[in-house]
Amino acid sequence: MAERAYNFGAGPCTLPLEALEEAQAEFLDFQNTGMSVIELSHRSSEYDAVHVEALELIKEIYHTPDDFDVLFIQGGATMQFSMVPMNLMHPGKKAAFSACGAWANKAMKESKIFGDVYAAWDGKSCKYTRMPMSNDYDLQDNTSYLHITSNETIDGVRMIEWPEVDVPLVGDMSSDFLTRPIPWEKFDLIYGGAQKNCGPSGLAIVFVKKAILENTRKDIGSYFRYDLHQRNKSLLNTPAIFPIYLMNKVLKWVKGNGGIEKMGEMAEQKANLIYQTIDNSDNYYLCPVEKKFRSIMNIVFRLPNEELEAKFISEATANRIIGLKGHRVVGGCRASCYNAMTVEAVNKLVSFMNAFRASNSI
Amino acid sequence: MAERAYNFGAGPCTLPLEALEEAQAEFLDFQNTGMSVIELSHRSSEYDAVHVEALELIKEIYHTPDDFDVLFIQGGATMQFSMVPMNLMHPGKKAAFSACGAWANKAMKESKIFGDVYAAWDGKSCKYTRMPMSNDYDLQDNTSYLHITSNETIDGVRMIEWPEVDVPLVGDMSSDFLTRPIPWEKFDLIYGGAQKNCGPSGLAIVFVKKAILENTRKDIGSYFRYDLHQRNKSLLNTPAIFPIYLMNKVLKWVKGNGGIEKMGEMAEQKANLIYQTIDNSDNYYLCPVEKKFRSIMNIVFRLPNEELEAKFISEATANRIIGLKGHRVVGGCRASCYNAMTVEAVNKLVSFMNAFRASNSI
Repeated sequence: MAERAYNFGAGPCTLPLEALEEAQAEFLDFQNTGMSVIELSHRSSEYDAVHVEALELIKEIYHTPDDFDVLFIQGGATMQFSMVPMNLMHPGKKAAFSACGAWANKAMKESKIFGDVYAAWDGKSCKYTRMPMSNDYDLQDNTSYLHITSNETIDGVRMIEWPEVDVPLVGDMSSDFLTRPIPWEKFDLIYGGAQKNCGPSGLAIVFVKKAILENTRKDIGSYFRYDLHQRNKSLLNTPAIFPIYLMNKVLKWVKGNGGIEKMGEMAEQKANLIYQTIDNSDNYYLCPVEKKFRSIMNIVFRLPNEELEAKFISEATANRIIGLKGHRVVGGCRASCYNAMTVEAVNKLVSFMNAFRASNSI
Repeated sequence: MAERAYNFGAGPCTLPLEALEEAQAEFLDFQNTGMSVIELSHRSSEYDAVHVEALELIKEIYHTPDDFDVLFIQGGATMQFSMVPMNLMHPGKKAAFSACGAWANKAMKESKIFGDVYAAWDGKSCKYTRMPMSNDYDLQDNTSYLHITSNETIDGVRMIEWPEVDVPLVGDMSSDFLTRPIPWEKFDLIYGGAQKNCGPSGLAIVFVKKAILENTRKDIGSYFRYDLHQRNKSLLNTPAIFPIYLMNKVLKWVKGNGGIEKMGEMAEQKANLIYQTIDNSDNYYLCPVEKKFRSIMNIVFRLPNEELEAKFISEATANRIIGLKGHRVVGGCRASCYNAMTVEAVNKLVSFMNAFRASNSI
């Protein structure tokens, strides 16, 4: 068996080894049923216990108030880019966006199919090297919600202040889920793909304020209706059993390891180890992001030239340090340090960065 | 470890043990990467090989002609109930349905949200105990397609003749996928949930005729557009990696065990063992379905009364014969015998049925 890789991929990504080991051990025989968990009926009591526990765990870990419900929906965050406006946009109203990076722009573009949208803040002029502060939004009349992206995976920027606005918020938190408390009173809806901090791919997690479900649109396909998923406790149809099952284990791991507060603290520590290496490199490594907006999940950086970047990524891979290539849209390098990333792995990367710089000076 | 259960559940359901064992063995270290398959990037060469191979295998096994493409889309068949009309219904045109059972009716009801639909054949008057024959359809003008359901999981009926009509067909084949050849020239689109004959839940498999993609609607959400999934080779966004990975293994198992022809032959054999037990029971067990339309996947039957049915299911469960309860809509009993169901398990069920009848006579 190969040694475990140091997986800095942006998602799907490294998951807690304990969760994987447990899943492996019981894969052929789940809780003495004589069946794999993926062979269980989604209406069986055994699966139901896993399902309900996962729903409850994520609410508990996130200190979610009772006026919110959590939904597990297939299709990832990309499908949520459509579902949000399908459910929440009403004729004559507009949706505002914090156009703070590649994913926010994708969400905004998708919403245009369904109604009027505009950028209440736009990071284009600063090349997405910062995020808006709490009062930076230029909201128009008839705005039904402001859509924010709390962390931009591709650009490596992070929202550090929640908006102070008089419209409800909708948040895409795919890439920093489970790393900081949510100011629930500001939000109508929060969503994210699972495949970073929560579990394997195949799932979006959606927190929805129950009170808004009365006014969500009902003239859309059943699978796209938040109210139907909520009424059916995320069992509207056969759910994505394995992703939910494994997420259950990841959530237990988060809970057992100090919850989101500890996850956030560890994320800062890990990110700082890498940012310090960048900042102490005499501009060999450069992070384009304005310091205070640097993501603690996705650390983006450049080397002196593209040849060195290619060499860096290739030699890292040879050392089992995986997934350092920046997104094809922006190039460069990126180290993603999600919750399951160990400090040991980060130290390994930091040592590699220092050694690479020493032997590849310019 | 518990002995393996005899799982007659309607889906999710029993899967090939070899596929499960392989997945377990490599769960912590996929192909010497030092990562679990669910930790791999969906853009990695390792995952890409799995993904492309699964797409190719299912086309190969199904003898799919080159003018069709296959897509993997999250959301199951339920989401396809919406996606089909969203993509294929055009203003002024109608969709015809073979209203042959619970799932067909669900698909038809969902399509009404998007346009005009009607039943070109209706099984209501015969209580869904038969299916239409090839010329039984009453098609109206301006019909763009006829939607059929090849096998009704809840009602236990099976289409035995493909329609002879002058409009294209759309087929839901969720519950008898990979058990018989498809007359491709009749179809524009075929879909089904994976969680019966193909793999775990979390996935729909969609075969689409490439030529129709020019005319599918483009004014819908990106995730719902067949043309975008096709153009992106089912990597429009992060795919459901684990379900696709495990389906890959199931497809290899099907190929290695004689393909769909052999699967169909074995399904007939297995179903006949149970139907013979029913027919030779002096009306103790009764199958309500007209003989020639009996499903070879889902064998529905009644006992003399509901008390005996409850006792039958409970004693079967105690003997590790699982999942025999009929769907709550119709009651009674149901034994689902998907491709991975062994003849040994069927014999076990048959023996149990005979023993139960002997000791519970009326």
